[in-house]
Amino acid sequence: MLERPIPIVPTLRGKTVVNLFFEPSTRTSTSFAIAAKRLSCDVVNFSRVASSVQKGETLLDTTRNIEAMRVDGVIIRHSCPGAARFLAKRINAFVINAGDGAHEHPTQALLDAFTLLQKIKTLEKKKILILGDIAHSRVARSDIWIFKKLGAEVSVCGPPTLIPPYIEEEMKVKVYFDLDKALPGMDVINVLRLQLERQKRGVFPSLREYRRFYCLTEERLKKAKKDVIIMHPGPLNRGIEIHPDVADGKRSVILHQVRAGVAVRMAILFLLAGGKIEKEKRE
Amino acid sequence: MLERPIPIVPTLRGKTVVNLFFEPSTRTSTSFAIAAKRLSCDVVNFSRVASSVQKGETLLDTTRNIEAMRVDGVIIRHSCPGAARFLAKRINAFVINAGDGAHEHPTQALLDAFTLLQKIKTLEKKKILILGDIAHSRVARSDIWIFKKLGAEVSVCGPPTLIPPYIEEEMKVKVYFDLDKALPGMDVINVLRLQLERQKRGVFPSLREYRRFYCLTEERLKKAKKDVIIMHPGPLNRGIEIHPDVADGKRSVILHQVRAGVAVRMAILFLLAGGKIEKEKRE
Amino acid sequence: MLERPIPIVPTLRGKTVVNLFFEPSTRTSTSFAIAAKRLSCDVVNFSRVASSVQKGETLLDTTRNIEAMRVDGVIIRHSCPGAARFLAKRINAFVINAGDGAHEHPTQALLDAFTLLQKIKTLEKKKILILGDIAHSRVARSDIWIFKKLGAEVSVCGPPTLIPPYIEEEMKVKVYFDLDKALPGMDVINVLRLQLERQKRGVFPSLREYRRFYCLTEERLKKAKKDVIIMHPGPLNRGIEIHPDVADGKRSVILHQVRAGVAVRMAILFLLAGGKIEKEKRE
Repeated sequence: MLERPIPIVPTLRGKTVVNLFFEPSTRTSTSFAIAAKRLSCDVVNFSRVASSVQKGETLLDTTRNIEAMRVDGVIIRHSCPGAARFLAKRINAFVINAGDGAHEHPTQALLDAFTLLQKIKTLEKKKILILGDIAHSRVARSDIWIFKKLGAEVSVCGPPTLIPPYIEEEMKVKVYFDLDKALPGMDVINVLRLQLERQKRGVFPSLREYRRFYCLTEERLKKAKKDVIIMHPGPLNRGIEIHPDVADGKRSVILHQVRAGVAVRMAILFLLAGGKIEKEKRE
Repeated sequence: MLERPIPIVPTLRGKTVVNLFFEPSTRTSTSFAIAAKRLSCDVVNFSRVASSVQKGETLLDTTRNIEAMRVDGVIIRHSCPGAARFLAKRINAFVINAGDGAHEHPTQALLDAFTLLQKIKTLEKKKILILGDIAHSRVARSDIWIFKKLGAEVSVCGPPTLIPPYIEEEMKVKVYFDLDKALPGMDVINVLRLQLERQKRGVFPSLREYRRFYCLTEERLKKAKKDVIIMHPGPLNRGIEIHPDVADGKRSVILHQVRAGVAVRMAILFLLAGGKIEKEKRE
Repeated sequence: MLERPIPIVPTLRGKTVVNLFFEPSTRTSTSFAIAAKRLSCDVVNFSRVASSVQKGETLLDTTRNIEAMRVDGVIIRHSCPGAARFLAKRINAFVINAGDGAHEHPTQALLDAFTLLQKIKTLEKKKILILGDIAHSRVARSDIWIFKKLGAEVSVCGPPTLIPPYIEEEMKVKVYFDLDKALPGMDVINVLRLQLERQKRGVFPSLREYRRFYCLTEERLKKAKKDVIIMHPGPLNRGIEIHPDVADGKRSVILHQVRAGVAVRMAILFLLAGGKIEKEKRE
């Protein structure tokens, strides 16, 4: 539908969703806002800055209030793991998790999987490497679940301080500390954003060292398959975790991911707001 | 109308109102935004943070500018008592007072009265207690006017430092300092939010002491009528001015107030934007 | 169209533009937002505060992401001269410069010219004075280009520290340091806003001195033509660069400029978004 000249349908006309973002975000909140508008769904932005939250209101009270205004759904990003689930059990509106702490980011996982399926048809037996700060990444966690569910073999790679010790056993992924050893044979490499503020907390010695060992460069990519797919959830730290030549290169699907994000979020809103999938007639 | 499957009508299509909030607010600005959208009225948010106000522009210039953009109405919240009236006399657009300092909050009063009328048909001879920081509350002031206008007997209760000395005589309300003496016979208790920052200015000794004497608990409510109605304009300080059991209990109409807020603000926008009430035909 | 009872047309239905403001602004961003809504064009606000920009993303990456969400146009204000041009060469969406540093502010120039043409039919041979901080003003720069293009004779006036030395020769304008000498014979005076924070950097000695020599007062205006037109891009510093009597006087077209801003920006959006001008049939 997004390819049409007028990419807007009246499907969710009269529905209202609230963008309830307790952490700053452009990408995800804008993506949801555009997805909603494409479906003629009203979006009310709830800004953390100018809000009752500053006045000490509980998350549940804030949301109950929003619910009482007859809102159909809530899109929530919150620093606390489980925040979305907590709400979903307590309020009478659909809840979409747009990221809860370092826990999960399910719509990102869905759009990542959707992007890959558009590019390589199936994930069955595909080898996918997730590269970077696994420990603090909700994207990593959600991606591992969905990629494995779809039949892929998932590995992770990063400095030992940024890989949780339990991950190999509990999530059944292969762990690499040496990127050069991880690359051969991979079909997909998902490069995670390095949260630069982590450095201050001492989990890695310096940006220079991180770049030297884990930055995905064209030079390093020679060790990977020729048609390996490069992903990144954004925003990019160019020259830190990914070299600009790789980010902007032919194998990169980074902007494709962004575009897929709107489509996937439209589908999610559509289904949760009660839309029905009709079999299309094609003659 | 809000109960319909598609709660949106084209009544105010093409009209534009500006949400001009100089103080942070979720509840009220979101309530107005949703009310406007339900009527297909465009809303432009004017954020204090990213505004010309920071650049030293006068309130009147800001509003004249907005008016010159051919805006139909202005919804203003401002820390200065009389701000809405000041504008209404000077610009050629309708002005809605969404709270001016500690002076008035008329749409809150209208929704409070509307909520009560839905619950108990009439306010004639009903006994209503407003509990808490009366001195700094625009809600208290507006509620007193409307409740008395509709025939109720209004009392206020709070610590002496938070009750203005003139109120008994000028606004014809009964004053209690002791909550236990105030409760018997009340039909409605409207619990005000305690502005926690007041404590620093020394108007009450400690939160603990405030809670001990003025927190509305189930225990205390035994002294009131069995079917007393509990109101609160929000946001709640749970465990300070109201106990969670009371806020979430059967007698509480707090979320009903929030829902009524959207309906009442729709009615206000509709009437001010020139809507006409047609006699509905029912066959 | 703005004079119609319902000032909204479906012309750009389904189009989406992003308000990408990296500097605070009310006037311009609200003006664009209203212009877009009048044309049924969706607007997504991209706030600097809650954005990936804080996370170190480059301007180009931010915009490519927005572009990937299938946005039709970007309205950008940025502190860096050339930012709009930089984007326009690199992304596949139309880009509107809403002010780039002290460089250009083309939509302001268009609305200033439009306002004058409505008032005095032609600028051919008209004498226009731009008064104030020329050195730091993007409005001055864009106005000089458009006024000269339309045949006017442009002069500038201000303290020597706020007039760039190259301007006389390179932009072919007459330079005055003494306002009383500049006023006689002028058809139009465009008073620029004084950025009060400049004082701290020492470019002029004190506000009091600036006011004494350059504030446009009724007294001073006696030296100008009787029907001289007074403009100001806003927001006003009343009593600093312009006296309230002048700003609110009969010769002022300041609010007319604001209103023209919406119309001009509607025209710009319409043309850039692919609208075609049809010859209107009138019978």
